[in-house]
Amino acid sequence: MLKLYYSPGACAIASHIGLEEAGADYEIEKIDLRAGQQRTPEYLAINPAGVTPALQTSEGVITQNAAILTYVAQTHPQAGLANLNDPFQFARLQAVNGWLASSLHPAIGKALFSRPALEGEAKDDAVKVALEKYDLAENHMLAGPWVLGEDYSMADGYLMVFTRWARQAALLDTTRFAKLNDHLDRVQARPAVQRVLAAEGIQAV
Amino acid sequence: MLKLYYSPGACAIASHIGLEEAGADYEIEKIDLRAGQQRTPEYLAINPAGVTPALQTSEGVITQNAAILTYVAQTHPQAGLANLNDPFQFARLQAVNGWLASSLHPAIGKALFSRPALEGEAKDDAVKVALEKYDLAENHMLAGPWVLGEDYSMADGYLMVFTRWARQAALLDTTRFAKLNDHLDRVQARPAVQRVLAAEGIQAV
Repeated sequence: MLKLYYSPGACAIASHIGLEEAGADYEIEKIDLRAGQQRTPEYLAINPAGVTPALQTSEGVITQNAAILTYVAQTHPQAGLANLNDPFQFARLQAVNGWLASSLHPAIGKALFSRPALEGEAKDDAVKVALEKYDLAENHMLAGPWVLGEDYSMADGYLMVFTRWARQAALLDTTRFAKLNDHLDRVQARPAVQRVLAAEGIQAV
Repeated sequence: MLKLYYSPGACAIASHIGLEEAGADYEIEKIDLRAGQQRTPEYLAINPAGVTPALQTSEGVITQNAAILTYVAQTHPQAGLANLNDPFQFARLQAVNGWLASSLHPAIGKALFSRPALEGEAKDDAVKVALEKYDLAENHMLAGPWVLGEDYSMADGYLMVFTRWARQAALLDTTRFAKLNDHLDRVQARPAVQRVLAAEGIQAV
Protein backbone atom coordinates (compact mmCIF):
# COMPACT_ATOMS: atom_id res chain seq x y z
CA MET A 1 0.00 0.00 0.00
CA LEU A 2 1.11 3.56 -0.65
CA LYS A 3 2.19 5.50 2.42
CA LEU A 4 2.39 9.29 2.49
CA TYR A 5 4.63 11.04 4.99
CA TYR A 6 3.11 14.44 5.77
CA SER A 7 2.94 17.24 8.30
CA PRO A 8 -0.48 18.76 9.03
CA GLY A 9 -1.22 21.74 6.82
CA ALA A 10 2.29 21.77 5.31
CA CYS A 11 2.78 21.48 1.57
CA ALA A 12 2.44 17.69 1.59
CA ILE A 13 -1.29 18.26 1.85
CA ALA A 14 -1.17 18.74 -1.95
CA SER A 15 -0.13 15.10 -2.35
CA HIS A 16 -2.60 14.04 0.31
CA ILE A 17 -5.43 15.70 -1.60
CA GLY A 18 -4.19 14.12 -4.83
CA LEU A 19 -4.32 10.64 -3.31
CA GLU A 20 -7.79 11.21 -1.87
CA GLU A 21 -9.19 12.73 -5.07
CA ALA A 22 -7.77 9.77 -7.03
CA GLY A 23 -9.48 7.25 -4.76
CA ALA A 24 -6.09 5.68 -4.04
CA ASP A 25 -5.51 2.95 -1.48
CA TYR A 26 -3.06 4.66 0.89
CA GLU A 27 -2.15 5.36 4.47
CA ILE A 28 -0.55 8.41 6.06
CA GLU A 29 2.20 8.87 8.63
CA LYS A 30 2.68 12.15 10.41
CA ILE A 31 6.13 13.75 10.57
CA ASP A 32 6.33 16.44 13.24
CA LEU A 33 8.32 19.20 11.54
CA ARG A 34 8.31 21.45 14.64
CA ALA A 35 9.85 18.64 16.69
CA GLY A 36 12.49 18.08 14.00
CA GLN A 37 11.27 14.58 13.16
CA GLN A 38 12.21 15.16 9.51
CA ARG A 39 15.87 15.09 10.56
CA THR A 40 15.80 11.78 12.46
CA PRO A 41 17.88 8.93 10.97
CA GLU A 42 14.65 6.99 10.41
CA TYR A 43 13.13 9.68 8.25
CA LEU A 44 16.36 10.60 6.48
CA ALA A 45 16.53 6.98 5.35
CA ILE A 46 13.20 7.58 3.61
CA ASN A 47 13.97 11.06 2.26
CA PRO A 48 17.60 12.20 2.61
CA ALA A 49 16.49 15.77 1.89
CA GLY A 50 14.67 15.78 5.23
CA VAL A 51 11.44 17.29 3.96
CA THR A 52 7.87 16.23 3.35
CA PRO A 53 6.12 14.96 1.31
CA ALA A 54 7.54 11.52 0.60
CA LEU A 55 5.45 8.72 -0.87
CA GLN A 56 6.51 5.16 -0.16
CA THR A 57 5.56 2.86 -3.03
CA SER A 58 6.26 -0.82 -3.66
CA GLU A 59 9.08 0.25 -6.00
CA GLY A 60 10.68 2.91 -3.81
CA VAL A 61 10.16 6.41 -2.46
CA ILE A 62 8.97 9.38 -4.50
CA THR A 63 9.60 12.94 -3.32
CA GLN A 64 8.42 16.36 -4.54
CA ASN A 65 4.71 17.18 -4.80
CA ALA A 66 4.79 17.61 -8.59
CA ALA A 67 6.34 14.15 -9.04
CA ILE A 68 3.96 12.50 -6.58
CA LEU A 69 0.91 14.14 -8.15
CA THR A 70 1.93 12.94 -11.62
CA TYR A 71 2.60 9.45 -10.30
CA VAL A 72 -0.81 9.27 -8.64
CA ALA A 73 -2.49 10.59 -11.78
CA GLN A 74 -0.67 8.07 -13.99
CA THR A 75 -1.48 5.13 -11.75
CA HIS A 76 -5.13 6.19 -11.31
CA PRO A 77 -6.06 7.30 -14.82
CA GLN A 78 -9.78 6.75 -14.24
CA ALA A 79 -9.77 9.75 -11.87
CA GLY A 80 -8.92 12.12 -14.73
CA LEU A 81 -6.69 14.36 -12.61
CA ALA A 82 -4.08 15.05 -15.31
CA ASN A 83 -4.28 15.17 -19.08
CA LEU A 84 -1.47 12.68 -19.53
CA ASN A 85 -1.80 12.00 -23.23
CA ASP A 86 -1.86 15.57 -24.51
CA PRO A 87 1.72 16.88 -24.21
CA PHE A 88 0.74 20.56 -24.24
CA GLN A 89 -2.03 20.20 -21.67
CA PHE A 90 0.22 18.04 -19.49
CA ALA A 91 2.92 20.72 -19.80
CA ARG A 92 0.45 23.37 -18.59
CA LEU A 93 -0.15 21.28 -15.45
CA GLN A 94 3.56 20.73 -14.94
CA ALA A 95 4.34 24.41 -15.45
CA VAL A 96 1.86 25.48 -12.77
CA ASN A 97 3.04 22.84 -10.33
CA GLY A 98 6.68 23.69 -11.01
CA TRP A 99 6.02 27.39 -10.45
CA LEU A 100 4.19 26.70 -7.20
CA ALA A 101 7.11 24.62 -5.93
CA SER A 102 9.98 26.80 -7.09
CA SER A 103 8.56 30.32 -6.92
CA LEU A 104 5.41 30.78 -4.82
CA HIS A 105 6.33 28.31 -2.06
CA PRO A 106 9.78 29.78 -1.28
CA ALA A 107 8.43 33.35 -1.43
CA ILE A 108 5.53 32.87 0.99
CA GLY A 109 7.61 30.46 3.06
CA LYS A 110 10.25 33.14 3.59
CA ALA A 111 7.63 35.71 4.56
CA LEU A 112 5.76 33.50 7.02
CA PHE A 113 8.04 30.72 8.24
CA SER A 114 11.63 32.05 8.40
CA ARG A 115 13.41 31.00 11.59
CA PRO A 116 14.18 33.30 13.30
CA ALA A 117 11.02 35.07 12.14
CA LEU A 118 11.51 38.12 9.96
CA GLU A 119 10.58 41.46 11.51
CA GLY A 120 10.13 45.06 10.44
CA GLU A 121 11.35 46.06 7.00
CA ALA A 122 12.70 42.58 6.20
CA LYS A 123 9.26 41.09 6.88
CA ASP A 124 7.54 43.82 4.86
CA ASP A 125 9.88 43.26 1.92
CA ALA A 126 9.34 39.49 1.98
CA VAL A 127 5.56 39.90 2.12
CA LYS A 128 5.67 42.35 -0.80
CA VAL A 129 7.70 39.93 -2.93
CA ALA A 130 5.35 37.08 -2.07
CA LEU A 131 2.18 39.07 -2.81
CA GLU A 132 3.52 40.00 -6.24
CA LYS A 133 3.66 36.28 -6.94
CA TYR A 134 0.06 35.91 -5.77
CA ASP A 135 -0.76 38.71 -8.23
CA LEU A 136 0.75 36.56 -10.96
CA ALA A 137 -1.39 33.61 -9.92
CA GLU A 138 -4.51 35.79 -9.69
CA ASN A 139 -4.02 37.39 -13.09
CA HIS A 140 -2.39 34.68 -15.19
CA MET A 141 -2.68 31.21 -13.71
CA LEU A 142 -6.36 30.61 -13.05
CA ALA A 143 -8.19 29.77 -16.24
CA GLY A 144 -11.31 29.30 -14.11
CA PRO A 145 -13.21 27.85 -12.50
CA TRP A 146 -10.23 25.55 -11.90
CA VAL A 147 -6.56 26.28 -12.52
CA LEU A 148 -6.49 24.67 -15.95
CA GLY A 149 -10.08 25.47 -16.95
CA GLU A 150 -13.25 23.45 -16.79
CA ASP A 151 -11.77 20.38 -15.13
CA TYR A 152 -10.38 20.04 -11.61
CA SER A 153 -6.78 18.77 -11.79
CA MET A 154 -3.73 18.01 -9.69
CA ALA A 155 -2.85 21.73 -9.77
CA ASP A 156 -5.89 22.83 -7.75
CA GLY A 157 -5.11 21.06 -4.51
CA TYR A 158 -1.53 22.32 -4.78
CA LEU A 159 -2.43 25.98 -5.33
CA MET A 160 -4.79 25.74 -2.37
CA VAL A 161 -1.84 25.06 -0.01
CA PHE A 162 -0.54 28.56 -0.57
CA THR A 163 -3.83 30.45 -0.73
CA ARG A 164 -4.74 28.72 2.54
CA TRP A 165 -1.52 29.90 4.21
CA ALA A 166 -2.05 33.42 2.86
CA ARG A 167 -5.63 33.59 4.15
CA GLN A 168 -4.52 32.31 7.56
CA ALA A 169 -1.99 35.16 7.65
CA ALA A 170 -4.66 37.70 6.58
CA LEU A 171 -2.75 38.35 3.35
CA LEU A 172 -5.38 37.11 0.86
CA ASP A 173 -7.20 40.40 0.30
CA THR A 174 -10.64 39.67 -1.12
CA THR A 175 -10.45 42.48 -3.70
CA ARG A 176 -6.86 42.14 -4.88
CA PHE A 177 -7.17 38.35 -4.92
CA ALA A 178 -10.83 37.82 -5.74
CA LYS A 179 -10.26 34.83 -8.02
CA LEU A 180 -7.82 33.16 -5.63
CA ASN A 181 -10.32 33.55 -2.78
CA ASP A 182 -13.11 32.02 -4.87
CA HIS A 183 -10.82 29.19 -5.90
CA LEU A 184 -9.78 28.45 -2.31
CA ASP A 185 -13.42 28.31 -1.23
CA ARG A 186 -14.24 26.00 -4.13
CA VAL A 187 -11.36 23.63 -3.35
CA GLN A 188 -12.19 23.53 0.37
CA ALA A 189 -15.80 22.67 -0.45
CA ARG A 190 -14.80 19.44 -2.21
CA PRO A 191 -15.66 16.32 -0.20
CA ALA A 192 -12.22 14.78 -0.77
CA VAL A 193 -10.52 17.92 0.54
CA GLN A 194 -12.78 17.98 3.59
CA ARG A 195 -11.79 14.38 4.33
CA VAL A 196 -8.10 15.30 4.02
CA LEU A 197 -8.44 18.28 6.34
CA ALA A 198 -10.17 16.08 8.90
CA ALA A 199 -7.51 13.36 8.56
CA GLU A 200 -4.76 15.93 9.20
CA GLY A 201 -6.70 17.38 12.14
CA ILE A 202 -6.94 20.87 10.66
CA GLN A 203 -9.76 23.20 9.64
CA ALA A 204 -10.92 24.93 6.50
CA VAL A 205 -9.93 28.60 6.66
CA MET B 1 8.50 25.72 -35.19
CA LEU B 2 9.39 25.67 -31.50
CA LYS B 3 11.14 28.77 -30.19
CA LEU B 4 13.09 28.79 -26.94
CA TYR B 5 13.69 32.04 -25.09
CA TYR B 6 16.96 31.75 -23.18
CA SER B 7 19.80 33.69 -21.61
CA PRO B 8 23.36 32.39 -22.16
CA GLY B 9 24.44 30.01 -19.41
CA ALA B 10 21.32 30.65 -17.33
CA CYS B 11 19.04 27.82 -16.30
CA ALA B 12 17.22 27.78 -19.65
CA ILE B 13 20.24 25.93 -21.01
CA ALA B 14 18.64 22.79 -19.52
CA SER B 15 15.73 23.15 -21.95
CA HIS B 16 18.12 24.09 -24.77
CA ILE B 17 20.09 20.88 -24.17
CA GLY B 18 16.85 18.90 -24.02
CA LEU B 19 15.75 20.22 -27.41
CA GLU B 20 19.14 19.53 -28.98
CA GLU B 21 19.43 16.02 -27.49
CA ALA B 22 15.92 15.26 -28.75
CA GLY B 23 16.78 16.31 -32.30
CA ALA B 24 13.93 18.82 -32.21
CA ASP B 25 13.26 21.39 -34.92
CA TYR B 26 13.60 24.64 -32.99
CA GLU B 27 15.06 28.12 -32.94
CA ILE B 28 16.34 30.21 -30.05
CA GLU B 29 15.92 33.85 -29.07
CA LYS B 30 18.22 35.49 -26.58
CA ILE B 31 16.77 37.44 -23.65
CA ASP B 32 19.36 39.69 -22.03
CA LEU B 33 18.67 39.27 -18.31
CA ARG B 34 21.36 41.78 -17.27
CA ALA B 35 19.75 44.44 -19.45
CA GLY B 36 16.33 43.64 -17.95
CA GLN B 37 14.87 42.40 -21.23
CA GLN B 38 12.81 39.83 -19.30
CA ARG B 39 10.73 42.72 -17.92
CA THR B 40 9.88 44.37 -21.23
CA PRO B 41 6.19 44.37 -22.23
CA GLU B 42 7.11 42.21 -25.23
CA TYR B 43 8.61 39.44 -23.10
CA LEU B 44 6.02 39.71 -20.32
CA ALA B 45 3.40 38.98 -22.99
CA ILE B 46 5.22 35.69 -23.57
CA ASN B 47 5.94 34.85 -19.93
CA PRO B 48 4.20 37.07 -17.35
CA ALA B 49 6.58 35.75 -14.69
CA GLY B 50 9.44 37.54 -16.44
CA VAL B 51 11.91 34.68 -16.34
CA THR B 52 13.50 32.27 -18.79
CA PRO B 53 13.06 29.64 -20.12
CA ALA B 54 9.86 29.92 -22.13
CA LEU B 55 9.09 27.67 -25.06
CA GLN B 56 6.75 28.96 -27.74
CA THR B 57 4.80 26.12 -29.33
CA SER B 58 2.02 26.09 -31.91
CA GLU B 59 -0.46 25.64 -29.03
CA GLY B 60 0.91 28.24 -26.65
CA VAL B 61 3.82 28.99 -24.33
CA ILE B 62 5.31 26.52 -21.86
CA THR B 63 7.37 27.73 -18.90
CA GLN B 64 9.47 25.92 -16.24
CA ASN B 65 12.37 23.68 -17.26
CA ALA B 66 10.75 20.53 -15.84
CA ALA B 67 7.59 21.11 -17.87
CA ILE B 68 9.49 21.94 -21.06
CA LEU B 69 11.75 18.91 -20.69
CA THR B 70 8.76 16.60 -20.27
CA TYR B 71 7.01 18.18 -23.24
CA VAL B 72 10.06 17.72 -25.46
CA ALA B 73 10.46 14.13 -24.30
CA GLN B 74 6.78 13.36 -24.93
CA THR B 75 6.80 14.91 -28.39
CA HIS B 76 10.11 13.24 -29.35
CA PRO B 77 9.71 9.75 -27.91
CA GLN B 78 12.26 8.23 -30.28
CA ALA B 79 15.00 10.11 -28.41
CA GLY B 80 14.35 8.10 -25.23
CA LEU B 81 15.03 11.01 -22.88
CA ALA B 82 12.32 10.14 -20.34
CA ASN B 83 10.75 6.88 -19.30
CA LEU B 84 7.23 8.12 -19.94
CA ASN B 85 5.33 4.86 -19.65
CA ASP B 86 6.72 3.62 -16.32
CA PRO B 87 5.08 5.78 -13.64
CA PHE B 88 7.74 5.11 -11.00
CA GLN B 89 10.70 5.77 -13.31
CA PHE B 90 9.00 8.87 -14.64
CA ALA B 91 8.44 10.00 -11.05
CA ARG B 92 12.17 9.57 -10.33
CA LEU B 93 12.94 11.94 -13.20
CA GLN B 94 10.29 14.41 -12.07
CA ALA B 95 11.52 14.29 -8.47
CA VAL B 96 15.09 15.14 -9.48
CA ASN B 97 13.98 17.93 -11.80
CA GLY B 98 11.61 19.29 -9.17
CA TRP B 99 14.35 19.27 -6.54
CA LEU B 100 16.78 21.03 -8.86
CA ALA B 101 14.21 23.76 -9.57
CA SER B 102 12.87 24.26 -6.06
CA SER B 103 15.86 23.52 -3.85
CA LEU B 104 19.27 23.55 -5.52
CA HIS B 105 18.60 26.45 -7.90
CA PRO B 106 17.37 28.94 -5.26
CA ALA B 107 20.18 27.94 -2.87
CA ILE B 108 23.07 28.41 -5.29
CA GLY B 109 21.30 31.35 -6.90
CA LYS B 110 21.17 33.15 -3.55
CA ALA B 111 24.86 32.45 -2.90
CA LEU B 112 26.10 33.56 -6.31
CA PHE B 113 23.60 35.92 -7.88
CA SER B 114 21.92 37.97 -5.13
CA ARG B 115 21.60 41.65 -6.07
CA PRO B 116 23.13 43.41 -4.24
CA ALA B 117 25.76 40.67 -3.92
CA LEU B 118 26.03 39.01 -0.53
CA GLU B 119 29.23 39.68 1.41
CA GLY B 120 31.00 38.40 4.52
CA GLU B 121 29.05 36.18 6.86
CA ALA B 122 25.85 36.36 4.79
CA LYS B 123 27.74 35.10 1.75
CA ASP B 124 29.47 32.38 3.76
CA ASP B 125 26.15 31.21 5.20
CA ALA B 126 24.49 31.11 1.77
CA VAL B 127 27.41 29.14 0.30
CA LYS B 128 27.29 26.67 3.20
CA VAL B 129 23.56 26.06 2.71
CA ALA B 130 24.05 25.61 -1.03
CA LEU B 131 26.96 23.19 -0.66
CA GLU B 132 24.93 21.01 1.70
CA LYS B 133 22.48 20.63 -1.18
CA TYR B 134 25.32 19.67 -3.50
CA ASP B 135 26.24 17.05 -0.86
CA LEU B 136 22.75 15.66 -1.21
CA ALA B 137 23.11 15.47 -5.00
CA GLU B 138 26.57 13.89 -4.70
CA ASN B 139 25.49 11.26 -2.20
CA HIS B 140 21.89 10.47 -3.12
CA MET B 141 20.90 11.68 -6.57
CA LEU B 142 23.44 10.25 -8.99
CA ALA B 143 22.74 6.61 -9.69
CA GLY B 144 25.66 6.71 -12.15
CA PRO B 145 26.95 7.08 -14.68
CA TRP B 146 23.91 9.29 -15.38
CA VAL B 147 21.48 10.74 -12.86
CA LEU B 148 18.92 7.96 -13.22
CA GLY B 149 21.38 5.15 -13.98
CA GLU B 150 22.55 3.62 -17.23
CA ASP B 151 20.64 5.92 -19.54
CA TYR B 152 21.14 9.63 -20.13
CA SER B 153 17.87 11.48 -19.46
CA MET B 154 16.34 14.93 -19.24
CA ALA B 155 17.72 15.21 -15.67
CA ASP B 156 21.38 15.20 -16.72
CA GLY B 157 21.42 18.41 -18.73
CA TYR B 158 19.49 20.10 -15.91
CA LEU B 159 21.85 19.03 -13.11
CA MET B 160 24.75 20.24 -15.26
CA VAL B 161 23.45 23.82 -15.06
CA PHE B 162 24.19 23.95 -11.35
CA THR B 163 27.42 21.95 -11.28
CA ARG B 164 28.66 24.26 -14.05
CA TRP B 165 27.86 27.37 -12.00
CA ALA B 166 29.52 25.82 -8.93
CA ARG B 167 32.69 24.95 -10.84
CA GLN B 168 32.86 28.46 -12.31
CA ALA B 169 32.69 29.82 -8.75
CA ALA B 170 35.40 27.37 -7.59
CA LEU B 171 32.91 25.68 -5.27
CA LEU B 172 32.86 22.21 -6.86
CA ASP B 173 35.66 20.63 -4.81
CA THR B 174 36.97 17.58 -6.67
CA THR B 175 37.15 15.42 -3.52
CA ARG B 176 33.91 16.41 -1.79
CA PHE B 177 32.05 16.35 -5.11
CA ALA B 178 33.93 13.68 -7.06
CA LYS B 179 30.84 12.18 -8.67
CA LEU B 180 29.36 15.57 -9.58
CA ASN B 181 32.65 16.59 -11.20
CA ASP B 182 32.76 13.37 -13.23
CA HIS B 183 29.14 13.87 -14.23
CA LEU B 184 29.73 17.46 -15.34
CA ASP B 185 32.66 16.38 -17.49
CA ARG B 186 30.60 13.60 -19.02
CA VAL B 187 27.69 15.92 -19.85
CA GLN B 188 29.95 18.57 -21.33
CA ALA B 189 31.61 15.96 -23.55
CA ARG B 190 28.35 15.14 -25.31
CA PRO B 191 28.17 16.47 -28.88
CA ALA B 192 24.68 17.90 -28.39
CA VAL B 193 25.83 19.82 -25.30
CA GLN B 194 28.87 21.15 -27.14
CA ARG B 195 26.58 22.43 -29.89
CA VAL B 196 24.38 24.14 -27.29
CA LEU B 197 27.33 25.82 -25.58
CA ALA B 198 28.54 27.09 -28.96
CA ALA B 199 25.06 28.34 -29.88
CA GLU B 200 24.86 30.29 -26.60
CA GLY B 201 28.39 31.64 -27.11
CA ILE B 202 29.76 30.16 -23.89
CA GLN B 203 32.50 27.68 -23.00
CA ALA B 204 32.75 24.36 -21.24
CA VAL B 205 34.15 24.90 -17.75
